[in-house]
Amino acid sequence: MVDVHVHEVGTRDGLQSVPFFVPTEMKKAWCTGEAEAGVHEIEVCSFVPVKLLPQFADAAEVVAHALTLEGLTVAALAPNLKGAERAMQLGVHKINYVLSVSESHNRANVRRSTDESIEDFVRIVESARGRPEGQRPIIVAGLATALGCTIEGNVSEDRVRQIAVRVAAAGADELIVADTVGYGNPAAVRRLFRAIKSDVGEIPIKAHFHDTRGLGLANVLAALDADVRAFDASLGGLGGCPYAPGASGNICTEDLVFMLEAMGLKTGIDIQKLIAVRQQVQQALTDQPFHGTIAKAGLPRGFALAHAA
Amino acid sequence: MVDVHVHEVGTRDGLQSVPFFVPTEMKKAWCTGEAEAGVHEIEVCSFVPVKLLPQFADAAEVVAHALTLEGLTVAALAPNLKGAERAMQLGVHKINYVLSVSESHNRANVRRSTDESIEDFVRIVESARGRPEGQRPIIVAGLATALGCTIEGNVSEDRVRQIAVRVAAAGADELIVADTVGYGNPAAVRRLFRAIKSDVGEIPIKAHFHDTRGLGLANVLAALDADVRAFDASLGGLGGCPYAPGASGNICTEDLVFMLEAMGLKTGIDIQKLIAVRQQVQQALTDQPFHGTIAKAGLPRGFALAHAA
Repeated sequence: MVDVHVHEVGTRDGLQSVPFFVPTEMKKAWCTGEAEAGVHEIEVCSFVPVKLLPQFADAAEVVAHALTLEGLTVAALAPNLKGAERAMQLGVHKINYVLSVSESHNRANVRRSTDESIEDFVRIVESARGRPEGQRPIIVAGLATALGCTIEGNVSEDRVRQIAVRVAAAGADELIVADTVGYGNPAAVRRLFRAIKSDVGEIPIKAHFHDTRGLGLANVLAALDADVRAFDASLGGLGGCPYAPGASGNICTEDLVFMLEAMGLKTGIDIQKLIAVRQQVQQALTDQPFHGTIAKAGLPRGFALAHAA
Repeated sequence: MVDVHVHEVGTRDGLQSVPFFVPTEMKKAWCTGEAEAGVHEIEVCSFVPVKLLPQFADAAEVVAHALTLEGLTVAALAPNLKGAERAMQLGVHKINYVLSVSESHNRANVRRSTDESIEDFVRIVESARGRPEGQRPIIVAGLATALGCTIEGNVSEDRVRQIAVRVAAAGADELIVADTVGYGNPAAVRRLFRAIKSDVGEIPIKAHFHDTRGLGLANVLAALDADVRAFDASLGGLGGCPYAPGASGNICTEDLVFMLEAMGLKTGIDIQKLIAVRQQVQQALTDQPFHGTIAKAGLPRGFALAHAA
């Protein structure tokens, strides 16, 4: 049993900003390494048109490999019905559908209104429900820009709550609430997650934070206070924005695991194995900025012994 | 009025790990720049033997300059009675005396036992009380390695509390509780600060966190939960440990101010002016690693307007 679920998204959120194709074997080894370190859910790829993101041209092969890893929940991102159906055909366990709460961001990202994206989500849920028992993936609604938007600035908490309620009513099995651009702060995080939890009841809510402005782990602590118990993270904090040189991306998986384990919250993840995977991935991704501190500073004296996975 | 006090220590904790002498004019400009940005307390130097830390050979001149800056509380570190008396003669407003809770760390740092350091603190308090009214500095007891030690590993919470009570009884006007080596985590921080506050009553307690393992700002959030309202920080997170290449040092002043202001907690500090000082200091300290994210990623859209100092 774990106290807090840490899900890897570097294989999707991280790789989508890497400007060259990462070999399929490397992606497979990354998934294998993390699964062996105890990570029990990985967002292994994105089902976007290959023209837009050639990085995921090998999605089918990566998914097929990930599905062989025992105990691993294989998740994939889908921005529309077409991507979701492809993911279902390939047998992924979980589909993370993403729409932006910010209207402008949604239009910039998927060229349609947030309402149109919600309608598409309804179709995805129907499509999943039409599948035979045992072949129905978990359908997740991801709310991007829930804590701010680089185009619109502030994003209204009321709007986030309304959209959360709508996708929950539409049949979302889980929600992801995402600070896509690193605008969130602990006060806003506590307020927003508490509000959404009271609105949608028992649906599991995962937090997806970026560390762009350094508040990633403080935001995790704030979300823990709001009883959030699942977090996305990226190995080495991979996924920095190409428009902000040096800026970090997702919160760093190994630093997150370190914080949680140090606090006495079990993740089921062996941090030293995780750091070994980081080194392997970093070697393959030469010149990509790897963030995070624990891999550089090392674990505190006596830590490993007290926190054996 | 400010909600949270942010004190600069880069001029002391940062500079003591810079391997070359930083020109006196640069140190003065740093103090001036931060005071103009709204920072109302700076630990401007350390009164250690010049043989041990030649960086602070110009302490008298830096203090004299800092004392001309209106509204600024001029603090200085002193590791012993001799340093404290020199600081008093020069007219500093506040003396931050430091001892390590970890016996081994105290011996490595100042070559005596923690008990001997406490006895020295008693003499410093007496020396300050013997001075004429109006020339008595505020005497602060800083408890280093309060959240762990690179030599001993875990540091007992009971021992920290006992020492806090002893220095409070000895006449400390304020306490600094320091995670000197970045071993702390939010759960330990909440526990320790709440415990010490309940032990020592009304004495102001400041937190001094290092970001060596990435948890600096999460630890700040935890300390805020324990009603701590004063924090040390270092511009650009200057002060990394020479034994951990790439590891960051103190929590970064500008990132801390960003987090607090984003949360709606007033610091009185103009973050854009602070970033301008960072750039000035960074130019002078070529090749020194500057940490922190907000200077790289930029403030969120619409932030500056909403949070004008």
